[in-house]
Amino acid sequence: MKIALFGAGRIGQVHAASIARNADSDLVAVTDVVESAAKDLAKSHGAAVLSPKEILSDPSIDAMLIASSTNTHSDLIEAGIAAGKAIFCEKPIDLSLERAKQVGAAAQGYAKPIMMGFNRRFDPNFAALKAGIDQGDIGKTEMLAVTSYDPTPPPIDYIKVSGGLYRDMMIHDFDMCSFLFGMPATVTAHGSCLVDSDIGKAGDIDTAVVVLTYADGRIATIRNSRRAAFGYDQRVEVLGSDGMLSVENETENQLRRATADGITSAKPVYFFLERYMRAYEIEWAAFVESCKAGTPVPATIQDGINALALAEAANQSLSTGQSVEVTPELTSA
Amino acid sequence: MKIALFGAGRIGQVHAASIARNADSDLVAVTDVVESAAKDLAKSHGAAVLSPKEILSDPSIDAMLIASSTNTHSDLIEAGIAAGKAIFCEKPIDLSLERAKQVGAAAQGYAKPIMMGFNRRFDPNFAALKAGIDQGDIGKTEMLAVTSYDPTPPPIDYIKVSGGLYRDMMIHDFDMCSFLFGMPATVTAHGSCLVDSDIGKAGDIDTAVVVLTYADGRIATIRNSRRAAFGYDQRVEVLGSDGMLSVENETENQLRRATADGITSAKPVYFFLERYMRAYEIEWAAFVESCKAGTPVPATIQDGINALALAEAANQSLSTGQSVEVTPELTSA
Amino acid sequence: MKIALFGAGRIGQVHAASIARNADSDLVAVTDVVESAAKDLAKSHGAAVLSPKEILSDPSIDAMLIASSTNTHSDLIEAGIAAGKAIFCEKPIDLSLERAKQVGAAAQGYAKPIMMGFNRRFDPNFAALKAGIDQGDIGKTEMLAVTSYDPTPPPIDYIKVSGGLYRDMMIHDFDMCSFLFGMPATVTAHGSCLVDSDIGKAGDIDTAVVVLTYADGRIATIRNSRRAAFGYDQRVEVLGSDGMLSVENETENQLRRATADGITSAKPVYFFLERYMRAYEIEWAAFVESCKAGTPVPATIQDGINALALAEAANQSLSTGQSVEVTPELTSA
Amino acid sequence: MKIALFGAGRIGQVHAASIARNADSDLVAVTDVVESAAKDLAKSHGAAVLSPKEILSDPSIDAMLIASSTNTHSDLIEAGIAAGKAIFCEKPIDLSLERAKQVGAAAQGYAKPIMMGFNRRFDPNFAALKAGIDQGDIGKTEMLAVTSYDPTPPPIDYIKVSGGLYRDMMIHDFDMCSFLFGMPATVTAHGSCLVDSDIGKAGDIDTAVVVLTYADGRIATIRNSRRAAFGYDQRVEVLGSDGMLSVENETENQLRRATADGITSAKPVYFFLERYMRAYEIEWAAFVESCKAGTPVPATIQDGINALALAEAANQSLSTGQSVEVTPELTSA
Repeated sequence: MKIALFGAGRIGQVHAASIARNADSDLVAVTDVVESAAKDLAKSHGAAVLSPKEILSDPSIDAMLIASSTNTHSDLIEAGIAAGKAIFCEKPIDLSLERAKQVGAAAQGYAKPIMMGFNRRFDPNFAALKAGIDQGDIGKTEMLAVTSYDPTPPPIDYIKVSGGLYRDMMIHDFDMCSFLFGMPATVTAHGSCLVDSDIGKAGDIDTAVVVLTYADGRIATIRNSRRAAFGYDQRVEVLGSDGMLSVENETENQLRRATADGITSAKPVYFFLERYMRAYEIEWAAFVESCKAGTPVPATIQDGINALALAEAANQSLSTGQSVEVTPELTSA
Repeated sequence: MKIALFGAGRIGQVHAASIARNADSDLVAVTDVVESAAKDLAKSHGAAVLSPKEILSDPSIDAMLIASSTNTHSDLIEAGIAAGKAIFCEKPIDLSLERAKQVGAAAQGYAKPIMMGFNRRFDPNFAALKAGIDQGDIGKTEMLAVTSYDPTPPPIDYIKVSGGLYRDMMIHDFDMCSFLFGMPATVTAHGSCLVDSDIGKAGDIDTAVVVLTYADGRIATIRNSRRAAFGYDQRVEVLGSDGMLSVENETENQLRRATADGITSAKPVYFFLERYMRAYEIEWAAFVESCKAGTPVPATIQDGINALALAEAANQSLSTGQSVEVTPELTSA
Repeated sequence: MKIALFGAGRIGQVHAASIARNADSDLVAVTDVVESAAKDLAKSHGAAVLSPKEILSDPSIDAMLIASSTNTHSDLIEAGIAAGKAIFCEKPIDLSLERAKQVGAAAQGYAKPIMMGFNRRFDPNFAALKAGIDQGDIGKTEMLAVTSYDPTPPPIDYIKVSGGLYRDMMIHDFDMCSFLFGMPATVTAHGSCLVDSDIGKAGDIDTAVVVLTYADGRIATIRNSRRAAFGYDQRVEVLGSDGMLSVENETENQLRRATADGITSAKPVYFFLERYMRAYEIEWAAFVESCKAGTPVPATIQDGINALALAEAANQSLSTGQSVEVTPELTSA
Repeated sequence: MKIALFGAGRIGQVHAASIARNADSDLVAVTDVVESAAKDLAKSHGAAVLSPKEILSDPSIDAMLIASSTNTHSDLIEAGIAAGKAIFCEKPIDLSLERAKQVGAAAQGYAKPIMMGFNRRFDPNFAALKAGIDQGDIGKTEMLAVTSYDPTPPPIDYIKVSGGLYRDMMIHDFDMCSFLFGMPATVTAHGSCLVDSDIGKAGDIDTAVVVLTYADGRIATIRNSRRAAFGYDQRVEVLGSDGMLSVENETENQLRRATADGITSAKPVYFFLERYMRAYEIEWAAFVESCKAGTPVPATIQDGINALALAEAANQSLSTGQSVEVTPELTSA
C-alpha cells in the first residue's frame, strides 16, 4: 500500500515510523504547511513532498494518513472520500460535533476503510484487559475507573485552540470507556483549574472528574489532570462480579533501589510517545490489515463521533451543574 | 482506667482485646442484650457482667466503650455524659442526622473525651499517607480517590436496618475524605444495584460512586461495592502538585507463585477485622491517651455528624439526580 | 498448661507475650540471672519469680520455655528432661556440636515434647511456601535460594561469644534449607569481613555465601550479611520443574510516594521481632498443641543438631577452602 | 558506515534490524552458509549476497558483524583484522580459550574497533544498575547475585556443540559479573542435570551455581537453569554498604487480574529476543559510535577472553570439586 502522510509534526513522525516498520505499507508522499518539516520527513523515508491536491489526485496513492492540525481533519476526510482513498485520521474528527456528524454522514456507505486513531485501544495492556473482560475473567462488569494524567500541561497557546480538556484530553478516556463499556446513559462532569491559573484565564480547566452511568446500572469514573510530577499516569481498572482487571503503568526500567530512605522504583515512561509507541505500530498494522482483508476497522468514524459527543455532554454538564442524558440525537446525524 | 463495654458482639470482642492489650486500660464490666454473649466475653477478660444502669451509676468506672447496635448509640452517649464518663462510641452516632445533632449539642462543652470510632484514621497506612500530605511530600493536594469494596454483602436482614449504603458503608469513606481534605462544598451521588437484586428490593444500592467537590476546586471520588471476589479492597490515592501518595492493599502473605499461567500473589487480607486489627489497637490507645493527657480526641463527635451529613446529602443527591450543596446548616444544630 | 520461662531478656519477653495470648498456656514463673528483669516481666504477667531449682522441682509446672543465654541451653534441657517437663528451647542447643549431640542422646525416647525454636518455619509466608511445594505447585524442586541480611551487626561483645556467623546467624537459614529440602550432601562456604573490620579482628566474618548440594542434584544457596541499610531482608525462593515460589519481604506499610524522583515504597519491617512476631505466636501455639495432643513437635532436637552440624561443616569448609561432605557421623551421636 | 553481516540466522536477523534502525549504518552485504537464508535477509534490507571473500576484499565495506556459528568466530575476526575492517562479533570468541587468546594476541594494537556482543551490558535495566553503583547509590559494593534461567532447554543437538552450560549460557553471567565487579580471584562451580536427562547423557549440566570471590572479599553468586516454566528469568542484585540495587524482570504487560484465586500478573517477556531487543539496538549504536568517534568499545575482546576464562575455570572446578584460582595466566596470552 502506498501511503500519503498529512502532517509532519511530532505525531506525523511517529506514524511515518510505523508505516516504515510495516512490511505492507510504504510512505510515498508527505505534505505539511511547514514545507521544511515535510521535506525533512520525506527525505528520511525516501518519500516525495507533494501538495494535498497532488496527493488526492494521484491514483497510485492508496491511503491517506491524516496527522495534521485538528481544524483540517474534517475537510481532509471528506476530500479523501471524494478521491476514493482509504483514510486513517488522528482524533478528533473535528472540534464541532455538528461538523463531525456531517463527516460521519458523508462516510455513510463508503466502501473503503476510514479509521480513527484511538491509539489506546491498541496498547497491548488495554487490549489484554479488554480480552480479559471478553473472555469472562471477571464475570459481569460493574465499575470502570480510568486515570489519565499528563506529566505537564501543554503551552497556553495550545490550550486556547485545543477545544478544552474534555475534547482534547479526556476524549481518549471517553473512547476507552466506550471501548470497554459501550455508550453511557448519563454524563456528569466536574472540573477545576488547580494546576495553572493561566489555563483558567484561557477559559479551560486542568483537573477533571467525569462520571458516566450506563442504562444497566454500571458506572464509570474518569479522572484527568494536566500535571503529574511523576510522569504520564495511564491506568484503567474494571470491577466485575468475579474479580477485577487493572492495568498499571509501564515504567522506565525495572531497577529497584533499596536504601535507608525506602525502596525506590522507576517512574512511568514519560509521555504518550514513549507509552504508546507499540500501540501506534499495532494500530497502523490494524488499519493496513483492514485495507488488505476488507474487514471492519477497529475504531470507526462513529467511535470518533461518540467520543466527541461525550465531551460535548461533559462541557454542558460542567456549565449547568447538571447530569446530561446521552440521547440518540447526541450521536446521530 | 476502668472500662465498661456495651456490646459483646464481633466488634465488641475486638475492642475488648484492644483494652486488654493496653497497659493503661482494664476491662471491668461488659453488658449486652444477649446475656450469654456478655458472660462469655466478661469471663475471658476477668470482667463482671453488669446492667447498663449499674455501669452508669458505678463511679469507679472511668469510661464507656459503646459497641452495641446503632440504634442504642445516641441514648448511651447522652446517658454517659449525664453520668460523667469518658466515652468511646462506634460509628455512626445515629442513623438520623437530626438525632446525631442533638447528641452533638448535648456534648457541647462536656469536659471529658468523647471519641468516635473512625478506625481507618488510625490504620498505619492511611496515617502515613496523612502524614505525607501534612509534611508536604506532594505539595498542594488536588484530587483524592477512595476505593472501598467489601468482599461480600451482609445479610439482607442487616441491609434492611443498616440505614443504606451511604450511611452504613460509605460513611467510613466520607470520614476518610474529611480526614484528608476537610468538608466538601458539594456532593454528587450515583448508585445502582448490581450485586444482589434482593438489596435493590430492600430499597438499597450495592454499587456506588460519589464525587465531592471542595470550595478551593479540589475533587474527591469515592467508589463502593458490596462485593469484590478477591476480598476487601481498601485503597486511597491523593494527587498533589508535586506527586502522588497512594495506599495499596495489605495482602495475606508475601508469597509469589510463578508458573506458565503467570505470577500470582496473595489476595488482600479478607475483611475489616483482619485489615484494621492494628488500627483498632492504635485507635484505642489514642482514646486512652486523650483521657490521660486531656488532649483533644482525634475523631470527634462533630466528625461523626459530618460523615452522617455527607451520607444524608448523598441520599438526597441520589434521589433527586442533582448535586447537593453542603451548607453550614447541614452539619450544625 | 503452666509455663516457666527461663530468661527475661528481649526474646523472653516476646515468648511471654505469646504465652499470654494463647488460651491454653499460662505463665506462672520467670527466672533470670538479672533478678530485676525477672521481677518486671513476672509482674506484668502475674507470674512468680522463682529460682531454676524451684521451677524444676515444682510438679505443677508443666513446661519450660528456655530463652536464657545460649551457654545455659544444653544443661537446662537435660535438667528439664530429668524433671519430666515439656521443653521449648530457643536455638541453638549449644555452640558445641558434641554437646548438642549429648543432649540429643539424653532426649532419646523421652515421652514429652522437646521443641526447638526455629521460628521461621512458622512464619506464615514461609509456611505458605512450604505448603506450595508440598502440594506440587511447582512440580519437582530444583534450586533454593535463601537471602538473609540483618539491618545492622550486633555489638562486638556479642559477636565474640556468638559462636560465629554460621552458628549464630546462618543457623536459621540452614534450618530453612532443611525444612524445605532436607539434609544436604555437601557444604561449601565462602565468607569475608566487609561490614565492620572489628568483626574480622574478633575472628568472625560478616558477609557469607554457602552452597549446599543434595544427593539428588538439587542445589541451595544461602547469602548472609550482617548489614542491610534498608533493613531486615528475609527472602526465600525455590525453583521447580513447573515454576517458582518466592517469599518477598513484609514492608512497614503499603504507602507509595510517586514524585519526580521515582516511586518510593516502604522498607522491610525492621528486624526479627517485627518480622517474626506472628511466627513466634504460631510457633508457641504449635508447641502447646503438641503438648496437648501428643503429636510430634514440628521442630525437633534433631533439627537443632542438624542445623548446628551444617554450621560446623561451613566453618570447616571456610577454613580449609574445600567442600565438606555431610556424613551420617556429622549429625548422629 | 557500510556493514557486512556474517550469519543470517535468528540473531543475524536481529542485528540486521538494528543496523537498519541506526541512521549511521547501512547493511550492504549478507553472507551465510545457507544461501537461501542470506538471500531472504539481504532482500528485505536491500543488501547484496556476497561470499566472505568478496566481503573481505571490498574496500567500501567498513565493518563486519559476525553472527555466524561459534566455530567461525575466531577465523573471521582474524580475517577481518587482516582486511582492516571494524569488527563486531557475537560471543563467544571461540570455545577454546587458547584459540581465543590467539585472536586476542592478533588484535593487540589493532587500530580499528573490535567489539564483543555482550548484549546485556546494554540492557537499559542493567545499565541503570551499573550507573547506580558508579554514582555511589549503595556505597561500597559487597555481594552480587545473578539469576539467569532460560524458559526451555535448547535441542540436544545444540547442547552437543554448545561447549557446555558454562561456556554457552553462563558466559553472559560471567561477563555481567566482570561488568559490575571486575575479575574474581576464585571460581567455585556446582552443577547437576535435573531438567532433562538427555542433557546429562550428552555430558552437560542444566542446573548450575557458581560462586566467585574477589581479592577484596566481595562475593558473587550465579544461578543458572535451562528451564523456568514461567519464562526467561533475568535478575541481578547488588548489596552495598548503603543499600541494594536490583533489576527485576520485564513482563509481557502490566495487566493484573484479581480473583478469588489471588492477584495474577504477567510473566516475564519470553526469551532473549524479546527481553534484550532494546539492548541489541543500543549495543549496535555503541559500536557505531566507537567507530565514528574512535572511542574505546564498551565490550572488548579481552572481556570476551575473560568470560571464557571464567567458564574454563568453572568447568575445571566442577570436574575437580575444588575452587579454582583465577591467575593472570588464565586470561593472558
